[in-house]
Amino acid sequence: MNEQICFKPIGIIHSPFAEISGVLIQPLSAKGIKGTIELITDFTEGLKDINGFSHIILIYYFHLVNKFSLQVVPFMDNELHGIFATRAPSRPNAIGISTVRLISVKQNILHIEEVDIIDETPLLDIKPFYPQFDNRSTDKVGWLKGKEILDGIRSDNRFK
Amino acid sequence: MNEQICFKPIGIIHSPFAEISGVLIQPLSAKGIKGTIELITDFTEGLKDINGFSHIILIYYFHLVNKFSLQVVPFMDNELHGIFATRAPSRPNAIGISTVRLISVKQNILHIEEVDIIDETPLLDIKPFYPQFDNRSTDKVGWLKGKEILDGIRSDNRFK
Repeated sequence: MNEQICFKPIGIIHSPFAEISGVLIQPLSAKGIKGTIELITDFTEGLKDINGFSHIILIYYFHLVNKFSLQVVPFMDNELHGIFATRAPSRPNAIGISTVRLISVKQNILHIEEVDIIDETPLLDIKPFYPQFDNRSTDKVGWLKGKEILDGIRSDNRFK
Repeated sequence: MNEQICFKPIGIIHSPFAEISGVLIQPLSAKGIKGTIELITDFTEGLKDINGFSHIILIYYFHLVNKFSLQVVPFMDNELHGIFATRAPSRPNAIGISTVRLISVKQNILHIEEVDIIDETPLLDIKPFYPQFDNRSTDKVGWLKGKEILDGIRSDNRFK
């Protein structure tokens, strides 16, 4: 269980957010925020048929986060929660996921919207979003109950 | 863009699926399939408040997949698609995601259901599932259109 698992980025995400603070914290609140994915050209063939999807799941590396904390006060709350009960970036493995809107694909460049991701973020994977598989009805949403109104909450430097 | 990004598993997923073939291919079709997560005990503190959530997102390593293909014929179709337009495991970075049902938490052990994951899979991250952030209405679902009925489709050895 102690072995390292290593990946190489498949591309880079470009966005208007240059710094770790001031980033909109969910795609939901990032409507109209545009970005691009620059896929390594060796992988372009892997994009066949992706333009059929309006939404894609991005898996990426929180490259500006240098430490992890097992308990954090997330941007959306004033209480301490276990890191695995939050979406905060300062995780043991600094992996982020965002479902974004896919606008167009030209060769190895994907134009996307609803981008809550920092500029120059290393991209690890792209998957198609399929609501029949990916949407869920939940019984319980813990401390996030009633917190769906983000009202432009942005990141600060607490996880730097 | 060529640097390696390395992670260590935060735990191991246990499930009834011992082999790469015969696995139910989405949580949707794995209702009633039980599993456990054995978190490394160093990280137990990170689980605080996770028991408030009925669903959690698991990010894990497809540890039995040894090669990648840029285009594949997925389990659910007979046509070739770009790997990034599919959920097939033979990806450039062999990262999987599943949203599963969280049943209970005892110390570092999480009991889960709707498990479409192979036994002994290295776990990279756990995030809470929050439908207000994670559910989407899509305009287009590409080649997956009308394929929501899985009818017990299971994996075979094609991506081994």
